[in-house]
Amino acid sequence: MKEEILSQIIQSVKKTRETNPLAPSITNFVTINLVANAQLAVGGSAAMVFLPNEAENISKIGGATYINVGTLMPSHKKTMIHAGNVLHKENIPWVLDPVAVGIGEERNEILKSFKENKPSIIRGNSSEIIALAGHWELEGGVDVSNVRGVDSTDPVERAKSAAISLAKWTNGAVAVSGEKDLVTDGKIIAISKGGSHYMEKITGAGCSLAGVMAVYACNSTPFVAALTGTNIFNLAGKRAEEKAKGPGSFEVEFLDALYNATPEEIANNEFTIEEIK
Amino acid sequence: MKEEILSQIIQSVKKTRETNPLAPSITNFVTINLVANAQLAVGGSAAMVFLPNEAENISKIGGATYINVGTLMPSHKKTMIHAGNVLHKENIPWVLDPVAVGIGEERNEILKSFKENKPSIIRGNSSEIIALAGHWELEGGVDVSNVRGVDSTDPVERAKSAAISLAKWTNGAVAVSGEKDLVTDGKIIAISKGGSHYMEKITGAGCSLAGVMAVYACNSTPFVAALTGTNIFNLAGKRAEEKAKGPGSFEVEFLDALYNATPEEIANNEFTIEEIK
Amino acid sequence: MKEEILSQIIQSVKKTRETNPLAPSITNFVTINLVANAQLAVGGSAAMVFLPNEAENISKIGGATYINVGTLMPSHKKTMIHAGNVLHKENIPWVLDPVAVGIGEERNEILKSFKENKPSIIRGNSSEIIALAGHWELEGGVDVSNVRGVDSTDPVERAKSAAISLAKWTNGAVAVSGEKDLVTDGKIIAISKGGSHYMEKITGAGCSLAGVMAVYACNSTPFVAALTGTNIFNLAGKRAEEKAKGPGSFEVEFLDALYNATPEEIANNEFTIEEIK
Repeated sequence: MKEEILSQIIQSVKKTRETNPLAPSITNFVTINLVANAQLAVGGSAAMVFLPNEAENISKIGGATYINVGTLMPSHKKTMIHAGNVLHKENIPWVLDPVAVGIGEERNEILKSFKENKPSIIRGNSSEIIALAGHWELEGGVDVSNVRGVDSTDPVERAKSAAISLAKWTNGAVAVSGEKDLVTDGKIIAISKGGSHYMEKITGAGCSLAGVMAVYACNSTPFVAALTGTNIFNLAGKRAEEKAKGPGSFEVEFLDALYNATPEEIANNEFTIEEIK
Repeated sequence: MKEEILSQIIQSVKKTRETNPLAPSITNFVTINLVANAQLAVGGSAAMVFLPNEAENISKIGGATYINVGTLMPSHKKTMIHAGNVLHKENIPWVLDPVAVGIGEERNEILKSFKENKPSIIRGNSSEIIALAGHWELEGGVDVSNVRGVDSTDPVERAKSAAISLAKWTNGAVAVSGEKDLVTDGKIIAISKGGSHYMEKITGAGCSLAGVMAVYACNSTPFVAALTGTNIFNLAGKRAEEKAKGPGSFEVEFLDALYNATPEEIANNEFTIEEIK
Repeated sequence: MKEEILSQIIQSVKKTRETNPLAPSITNFVTINLVANAQLAVGGSAAMVFLPNEAENISKIGGATYINVGTLMPSHKKTMIHAGNVLHKENIPWVLDPVAVGIGEERNEILKSFKENKPSIIRGNSSEIIALAGHWELEGGVDVSNVRGVDSTDPVERAKSAAISLAKWTNGAVAVSGEKDLVTDGKIIAISKGGSHYMEKITGAGCSLAGVMAVYACNSTPFVAALTGTNIFNLAGKRAEEKAKGPGSFEVEFLDALYNATPEEIANNEFTIEEIK
């Protein structure tokens, strides 16, 4: 099975660089620039929108859409709920980053609406994944998670059951970011290693990972897209750390490393596969 | 004629560094930081606003204003249309970046309103320039351009006729960004060379170029401002590529190169001049 | 007295790195990424919000909140005034950056509302500090300051009387950024030296300084937090300039230097203390 996954990762990376697929985003203001730059670095194309009709139009042109609920303003609710409806109805793959679920009503309502509109990939830290599963009343979720802004306060392993529930519900993939990263489609679990301690010292490592998953989702299954994104981030993080002298130079080296990683190197970043019994 | 233009470029760069002119912007959230940093790097001063009255007040204080329709939110329409009216009425130079014309109603209405309010400089990729000319019902325009987000899908040459029409209509300058860059005031055409393939691998090379043109427009004619901006970007792109190891280090080197380029080097970046018959 | 302050700075830096305190922000779109990255680099945690209820909820979770009135949109007024009320009522420390006071009605109303809600730290350039004192009808203020966007046009010394008035009114601290930086609590004045000419060539040096002060304010008095932030910025600016080849590399080196500065180095950055008679 791992051989087949390796081959699918290589195909996903190659096809992305050849076809330059468009992955539009509705994303937060803090890391919007890094999301776009990471998407471009891996060979994708980026377009950020905030109006309902523009979200609809650009989603129909693009291959997969990314929605990150990070920095909501009053108009986001309408745009995001509408986009979720369109993406589901049109069967367009999309990636959700449920940042800071639980800190406000609008955020909770938006995230609630996504339950039926089933994102193809959900990426978050373990606290967010547990809280989202709770919010959607799925197994492994906790109603009131210890969600503190965008920081993860739970280890990845604790979110395993919630991640599986979410993946089964959406029939897609779920990625839990942490010291090790867990990716599951509800049937198998991949654990990917690497990355860098500096990834918590720059803002947007998680947001840009989800944006990159959307780029790969233009060309591959949710599980392969999520794992390809996770692997390239772990590889690039490790390489960037070797050259970095602090978080400023880390971010620069990280973007360079995303751009320079070969398909084979990305596929061969250390990861394990396990079937869920 | 080229001698005179060279001398005007040198004057524009020098005066900018001496006087630190303010070029306010209403611009998109993706590249707003790079726009400001590029404006500062060439010796200008930046101020970004989003409210109608602040756009009016700061435009009256500044030397030239920059409007980029990239990431619209509901309040942008009122602000941008009002700003266009004020700039036209007060005869203040301004630069338009018609990002992704065609992907939404609000965007189209805003851009339609700018036809009568005549931007001094219009900068876009060839698809955008052709689409804007079409939107304004000018020669060389195409009603439904193959506009895909912010990417250019047409070569620069194809936008030549549209660029000339727009420049004649506005009595200003038009700059078409691509592998080579075309700048015209409707009477002469400059083709500027240089740049880097990395400029498509970072977000905001075009947006920040337009912002820098606004800085130079505080001190020079639209044509000279557009050409000075184009030349410094082509020079800095070329130099940055020599040192870059990927898009991350390219952006860093690019800002350094903008800052370090001398007036004479900017003027002498390779370009040709041709009169329109 | 200086010995005690040195010791407090060292404690503040150490405790911040140990406890990773959350300092939420309502801040501008231009420099929001640098604010977050600077907060992370010094050991804090960042979360940016724009909705009234999210501002309230996150402020109650965080240790100190940062409000920067830089790029207002229509919804900011409600959010910022509500946040100010909550912060005051709940006695949560907060930092105000009164960017471009005077350029619009909404901005002036927001800033007026803060007079009674008393920010713990106010940080601005001298023009902004003088204008804010004028706006609040305090001694040393000038009604119509020569405020030009975000640039400082007055030397730091000219804002001394305004800074003292503001500090006395809020019973907090005021920091005036300039070639030298002045920090006062109304009883003593610290003058901190260092920094770099490049800090005016990147956008957000001031905004991110205020964000870092909010991080330190989670653990220390307003005066110590403001001085610790000022000292680390002056130290990091000086060190970054030694390695920088332009504003692009300066910003990278600056973030690295923030991350690498030791508590003792930060405390021992050159500064003087003077009692106000």
